[in-house]
Amino acid sequence: MRMSPERLRRLAIALLEARGASPANAHLQADLLLEAELRGLPSHGLQRLPLLLSRLEKGLADGRTYGTATWRSRSFLSIDGERGLGPVVMMHAMETIRPVMSETGIAIAAIRNANHMGMLAYYAEAAARSGLIGIVMSTSEALVHPFGGTRALLGTNPVAIGIPSSDHPFVLDLATSVVSMGKINNHAMRGAPIPSDWAVDAKGSPTTDPNAAKSGAIAPFGGAKGYGLGLAIELLVAALAGSDLAPDVHGTLDDIHAANKGDLLILINAASGHGNARSLAAYLDHLRRSPASDPGKPVAIPGDGARRRRIAAENAGIELPQTLLESLLALEAA
Amino acid sequence: MRMSPERLRRLAIALLEARGASPANAHLQADLLLEAELRGLPSHGLQRLPLLLSRLEKGLADGRTYGTATWRSRSFLSIDGERGLGPVVMMHAMETIRPVMSETGIAIAAIRNANHMGMLAYYAEAAARSGLIGIVMSTSEALVHPFGGTRALLGTNPVAIGIPSSDHPFVLDLATSVVSMGKINNHAMRGAPIPSDWAVDAKGSPTTDPNAAKSGAIAPFGGAKGYGLGLAIELLVAALAGSDLAPDVHGTLDDIHAANKGDLLILINAASGHGNARSLAAYLDHLRRSPASDPGKPVAIPGDGARRRRIAAENAGIELPQTLLESLLALEAA
Repeated sequence: MRMSPERLRRLAIALLEARGASPANAHLQADLLLEAELRGLPSHGLQRLPLLLSRLEKGLADGRTYGTATWRSRSFLSIDGERGLGPVVMMHAMETIRPVMSETGIAIAAIRNANHMGMLAYYAEAAARSGLIGIVMSTSEALVHPFGGTRALLGTNPVAIGIPSSDHPFVLDLATSVVSMGKINNHAMRGAPIPSDWAVDAKGSPTTDPNAAKSGAIAPFGGAKGYGLGLAIELLVAALAGSDLAPDVHGTLDDIHAANKGDLLILINAASGHGNARSLAAYLDHLRRSPASDPGKPVAIPGDGARRRRIAAENAGIELPQTLLESLLALEAA
Repeated sequence: MRMSPERLRRLAIALLEARGASPANAHLQADLLLEAELRGLPSHGLQRLPLLLSRLEKGLADGRTYGTATWRSRSFLSIDGERGLGPVVMMHAMETIRPVMSETGIAIAAIRNANHMGMLAYYAEAAARSGLIGIVMSTSEALVHPFGGTRALLGTNPVAIGIPSSDHPFVLDLATSVVSMGKINNHAMRGAPIPSDWAVDAKGSPTTDPNAAKSGAIAPFGGAKGYGLGLAIELLVAALAGSDLAPDVHGTLDDIHAANKGDLLILINAASGHGNARSLAAYLDHLRRSPASDPGKPVAIPGDGARRRRIAAENAGIELPQTLLESLLALEAA
């Protein structure tokens, strides 16, 4: 059954508030999950909500705190998230470093002990819409094997980059794994095989069985280069946030442990640069209109598809898996 | 014939000085090229020297300037490279923003109008060896096609990231193309076919002919994700440095045009972070010792191979292609 985004938003806010989130924080957390649904990214949408609600109930997430911020130097903010909701801690970090960045041209926030940030594009786009360049990185539980390796030793370590242009902001958001664990779970649910280059099983052998992959490790994207990028993000985040490295990380996929991964936000003042937002937009349009290898599939700019899906879903509503919808409605009725 | 690194270094310095480079600048430029040779990266080594010498002779490169730096804000340095040598302008930028970064925790330099930076690992490693996190990005001529596209519209847009650890610094350096044009040139010289997923020809069709690839476009690495990352670097550099976008870029592969690509350097004070350099080193060792998919090929950390090759070449000397060596010796004798 399709539901209107507003109905689902109210549902999520009510469930979060009922577990101690302040109205503003519940609204922000719900908005992040709804934006993922609207953009066709259900792995970062409302399917994350039941776990988050359980974490709030158990005290592993605190729906009221923004975390405690300490300026390590003029433009370097260190944040202990104090089990706060991911988007609450991140957006508060952005607002805190923004005035410093306006003066110095660049500023950074390093966050530990915050809950799952969800879709990083949300933050990169928020920065870009207000005329800033935003670079966001997160770490996670060990799910990805090194290039040439067989054990899950790296996080999926996503990075998002938002850049203003005179048209839509450019928003890149990618995990450094070849595929998300969410997509592998989805294949497992449907009983569908996975491509043989997505994952290895617990013994380290390539597998097409999604259930075997779940106890194994996902491949990094792009071979040695993607592995290198994911590893750089692993080290950067740990070095600056003081968060744990992947093999010791818990708390974004369970409701047993505090979340001890880390997150980074770098803001750069595009107005300090010499670029021209109009020429960036013209260049992106030039790419879109360039010849495609398959004439039926025009060249896309990262974010184009999400924007199209968002417009469609705003009108048509959001189709949640029946079991998820039922469990959310049951929680609401409880 | 194998030559000692010191012999080749003196040769390069003499040739650069003879074309107006100051002794210090000639030494730095030569060191960058030698480091690439020592690390087994000949595409960024002395084969770049003849073109650079020609550019110095023609006034397209200036061996004396460091460029003109302007502070756009407290931690944002904008540099007009004034046709300076790439490593001279970049290392001067690093020294200029370093004291500001020490105070503010993070600083950025955006460079336009400098010559080719060469191997970006050089700068990222220099930062990491002095306890700093260094992130370096460059753009280039249009050589790479968009994911799903067929025309060369993006630069090879490399990024390097250096992170201190208590052991060797971690140094990642990757182009966002699946392969360098240097490697395709090398296949063309040897008359060897290239894999079919490396490049398209001038008509946009996949090709195994390296000569056809040279007039076509190289694929981005890692499919849509690698393309997105390369595109983000393209936009970031242009937005901040005010440099040209790939389709309008010239001057790193010819001796006709001034170099109008751009370069970025971000320095972050690792000492402002909460990380532990020893735990990073222990984690990297844990990766190296983890089970490999091919027992004969242990898991590697980016930079491991370069370091091994460097030690071997320091002792065994450097083997240049005969034609390159002869042309350099002829220039020396002239």
